[in-house]
Amino acid sequence: MPPRVTHERAECPVARAVDVVGDRWLLLIVRDAFDGISRFSDFQRNLGLAKNILSSRLRELVAQGILEVVPASDGSAYHEYALTRKGRDLFVLLVGLRQWGEDHLFEDDEPHSVLLDVRTQKPLQKLEARDAAGRVLTSTEAIVRKVQATS
Amino acid sequence: MPPRVTHERAECPVARAVDVVGDRWLLLIVRDAFDGISRFSDFQRNLGLAKNILSSRLRELVAQGILEVVPASDGSAYHEYALTRKGRDLFVLLVGLRQWGEDHLFEDDEPHSVLLDVRTQKPLQKLEARDAAGRVLTSTEAIVRKVQATS
Repeated sequence: MPPRVTHERAECPVARAVDVVGDRWLLLIVRDAFDGISRFSDFQRNLGLAKNILSSRLRELVAQGILEVVPASDGSAYHEYALTRKGRDLFVLLVGLRQWGEDHLFEDDEPHSVLLDVRTQKPLQKLEARDAAGRVLTSTEAIVRKVQATS
Repeated sequence: MPPRVTHERAECPVARAVDVVGDRWLLLIVRDAFDGISRFSDFQRNLGLAKNILSSRLRELVAQGILEVVPASDGSAYHEYALTRKGRDLFVLLVGLRQWGEDHLFEDDEPHSVLLDVRTQKPLQKLEARDAAGRVLTSTEAIVRKVQATS
C-alpha cells in the first residue's frame, strides 16, 4: 500500500482527529475498552480479529496515548490495556456513533444492545450540538472560521 | 486485499456505525459537505485526493444514503452531492471529533480552525453524554445491556 496521507499538521481539528481515530478496528477496540475489556486475548476473542492486526492497532492506540499498558489487575505476569484520560474523552464520540447507528442502521423492530445509565437503568439523552447559551444548533447554524494566513 | 469483515448484522449499534463511517476519507468528505462543498472537483481540490479514491468514497456515501446526487444548483449540466437527513445527523459526530481534536491534538498556542454559532459567532458548548434527567455522565456511569439470546 502507498504511504498513508496524514493530516497530523492540519489546521482543522476534525482532520487531525479523523487521522487518529478514523479506523474501523481502532474504534471497536476503544468501544471494547469502554466495556471493560483489557487483555489482548479478550479483545481478540470479542472482535474475532487476526493477532497481527490487533497488535498493530493496540500499538497505535498506545503510541497515540489513547490506551496505556498497565500491570495485570490480578497480579499475574500478563499486562493489560487501560484507557487514558485522552482515551476516556472519546466516550462522547462512541455515544454519538451508537445513537446514529440506532437511528439509521436498524429496523424498528430489530433488537440491539442499549447503553444505560448505571444508576437509573434508563437510556442516555440524545447528544445535541448546542450554542454557548444551551440552544440546540443544527449544522446550518454553525460555521467554520479558518485560520488566517499570517502576513 | 482480503474481503473486509463487516458488522452489518451486528447487534451493537456502534459496530454498525463504525462499519459505515469508520474511514478517514469518508469522514473528511462528510466534513467538507457540512462546509458547503458539493462538487466532485471541489472535494478533490480540498482533500487532495486521487480521483478513483474520491469516486469510490462518494459512491459508498450515496449507497449508504448519507449523500444524494442532485442537479447542479446553478442549472448547469453538472451534478452535485448533498447531505441527506441521515448525513446531516452525523453533525454531532463531526462536532465530537473536532472537540476531541482541539483538546488533545493541538498545542496550547497552535492555531486551528474553529466552529462557531453563526448567530453569535461564539464557539459551541462542549458535547457531553447526559442521563435522562440531564446530568453529565462519565463512561463509568454507563453500561451496555446486550441483547438477550432468545430461547
